[in-house]
Amino acid sequence: MRFLHTADWHIGKKLHAFSLAAEQQDAFTQIKTIAAQEKVDAIVIAGDLYDRAVASEDSVAMLNGMLKELNLQEKYPLLAISGNHDSATRLETGSDWYTATQFYLNTTFAGAFEPVTLADTQFFLLPFFQPQQARNYFEDDSLKELPEIMKRTVAEMVTKFDPTKKHVLVAHFFAAGSSHHDSETKIEVGGLNAVPVDLLEVFDYVALGHLHDKNALHHPKIQYAGSPVKFSASEAETEKGVWIVDTDPYAAKWVPLRPLNDIQILENSYAELTDPALYHSIPNDDYVVIKLTDRAVIEDVLNKLRNYYPRILTLTRVNGRESLTVNDDDVVLTDLAPLALFENFFTKMTDEQPTELQKKIVQESLAELKKGDQDETN
Amino acid sequence: MRFLHTADWHIGKKLHAFSLAAEQQDAFTQIKTIAAQEKVDAIVIAGDLYDRAVASEDSVAMLNGMLKELNLQEKYPLLAISGNHDSATRLETGSDWYTATQFYLNTTFAGAFEPVTLADTQFFLLPFFQPQQARNYFEDDSLKELPEIMKRTVAEMVTKFDPTKKHVLVAHFFAAGSSHHDSETKIEVGGLNAVPVDLLEVFDYVALGHLHDKNALHHPKIQYAGSPVKFSASEAETEKGVWIVDTDPYAAKWVPLRPLNDIQILENSYAELTDPALYHSIPNDDYVVIKLTDRAVIEDVLNKLRNYYPRILTLTRVNGRESLTVNDDDVVLTDLAPLALFENFFTKMTDEQPTELQKKIVQESLAELKKGDQDETN
Repeated sequence: MRFLHTADWHIGKKLHAFSLAAEQQDAFTQIKTIAAQEKVDAIVIAGDLYDRAVASEDSVAMLNGMLKELNLQEKYPLLAISGNHDSATRLETGSDWYTATQFYLNTTFAGAFEPVTLADTQFFLLPFFQPQQARNYFEDDSLKELPEIMKRTVAEMVTKFDPTKKHVLVAHFFAAGSSHHDSETKIEVGGLNAVPVDLLEVFDYVALGHLHDKNALHHPKIQYAGSPVKFSASEAETEKGVWIVDTDPYAAKWVPLRPLNDIQILENSYAELTDPALYHSIPNDDYVVIKLTDRAVIEDVLNKLRNYYPRILTLTRVNGRESLTVNDDDVVLTDLAPLALFENFFTKMTDEQPTELQKKIVQESLAELKKGDQDETN
Repeated sequence: MRFLHTADWHIGKKLHAFSLAAEQQDAFTQIKTIAAQEKVDAIVIAGDLYDRAVASEDSVAMLNGMLKELNLQEKYPLLAISGNHDSATRLETGSDWYTATQFYLNTTFAGAFEPVTLADTQFFLLPFFQPQQARNYFEDDSLKELPEIMKRTVAEMVTKFDPTKKHVLVAHFFAAGSSHHDSETKIEVGGLNAVPVDLLEVFDYVALGHLHDKNALHHPKIQYAGSPVKFSASEAETEKGVWIVDTDPYAAKWVPLRPLNDIQILENSYAELTDPALYHSIPNDDYVVIKLTDRAVIEDVLNKLRNYYPRILTLTRVNGRESLTVNDDDVVLTDLAPLALFENFFTKMTDEQPTELQKKIVQESLAELKKGDQDETN
């Protein structure tokens, strides 16, 4: 069979103050078109359908509309899980009715062990979960870290394997590294260990969600789809798209999505930025990250530049400002005493020296803090 | 056909600080039992399924569980609408899938004109709506008040009547009075007019939600089901239950629900309240409204009484307190000058006379206010 693998829709996501609803709707339309062109038999959404546990009414209406279009109008079987951004309980609403039209939405750990069989493939739908949910399910409190939990989880799934079928895992977690490394390096993100990639190699394909860049992993059969839309300045250079996966014989093809409005990183001087040659080359609706190379003070620079680039996300100075009296390069901050550190910070922020009264207040506060430290150690 | 008519579940509702989850689950179980005993062909829920537009995860899980039990397990056709407490957009989630198992949940004004036919009956599902939604639907901004909007709405529904069927309206609004009264008395609740009852008489039955007392209307075929649980002290004496309605020949039977924990109104003295004869007669889990008849000061009276009645909702004194130096009966408050009114209030609240300084501050404030008034009229 052939399916489309997407993830991390994050419906409701804002980019700084800007709604991404138009971008998300456009990406959805592209995904629908790709699904039709590629004649896929099913669509996999690997978690984080919403951006927030309590989505706004607009977001609820948008996601509901998308799911209806894919499943009820276009009649695609859907395979979906909840991610860490979704409320499993809220997202679960209606799921027991959805299966009648081959919309399989799993939000529970236990549900991951009831594979969905479509054509030649068994799909195991593992939502984002907390370790305690796995301990409860296995009735085993000795399961501590995510790698051993996933080892147990995969072993349990293997017992459900139909040997005549292909086996696909849909999951939402951070996968990286290997369990065979001698160094036993623990890769952690947000306090949770990464799932070692080799644990997942028993599957014919692993459709992952969580990381927004398909290049987060380089494994022929264990892949992140990434988000369909650029959700932060750090994703400015990330190509967005979906995977088209054939199960037999196995093949995975990346189909890129064209951003409706792109994120542009401009590292330029004010003179360059206000040059028509540059600003006419940037579409008005693109989001712009400005790294200003000038060192001179330019009054109201952000508002001035908004006349040329209406959707500025951030403006930073890459070379500092000329008016600064303290040059960071001259001072090793960690060498300074607390009061000197404060003076340094104050001057940097205000371009003024602290007054004697201000210094006195800080000195007293520092003394107070020091006293508190001593009290606690006694 | 025979259906059960209930409404105003308000899942998530709290009674003062107390969760009513246990009471709501118990009432639901009773409703399920009644539905089975009465062998109903369908269940009507006339709005306000949730208590809040954004229900808690627990409430979402509870309502989802109830709807699954009725529709997917017990296989009852369900007919439901959103009420003013529900978010129509949020509640709508899944509804397009629900119809496959005869769960008809309408949250849109337009949907009210697509009747659902079950056996011998057409059901018109009219959710709570804002007048503007009706104006948009009819493309007629001349529709101002709810009575004329409902007249138009009912007329439109009549055009969809199948004459071989019975016609039932499910709606969530305040129905009262008649459009034929000479006085043209407008009955308003919360700024919205009431819907005159005679407008609805074209239906064979009107299953209403909104008011929590079935006795809010006395009409043989236009009925409130009321809430299944007592939701406030003002509902202490209200009998809760459901209607069992036969369409042909028409019959409506009231089946009461037994409260899991009742609300008790106790108008007694402290001595009576702490008498085992009384407090042993009140179940510990009942909610208690105390109207204390004593006039004497009793220190920490609320906490003392909680030893006998753990779930006190409110405690008020029906006869005032003996220590009060001003007896309300002796003074006609509106006759007093502002300063005297303040002194009266101060004394009542604190059992002390205001000091000269306090009186001076008030006097100055009053003068300031008076000056402000004059400034504004100039």
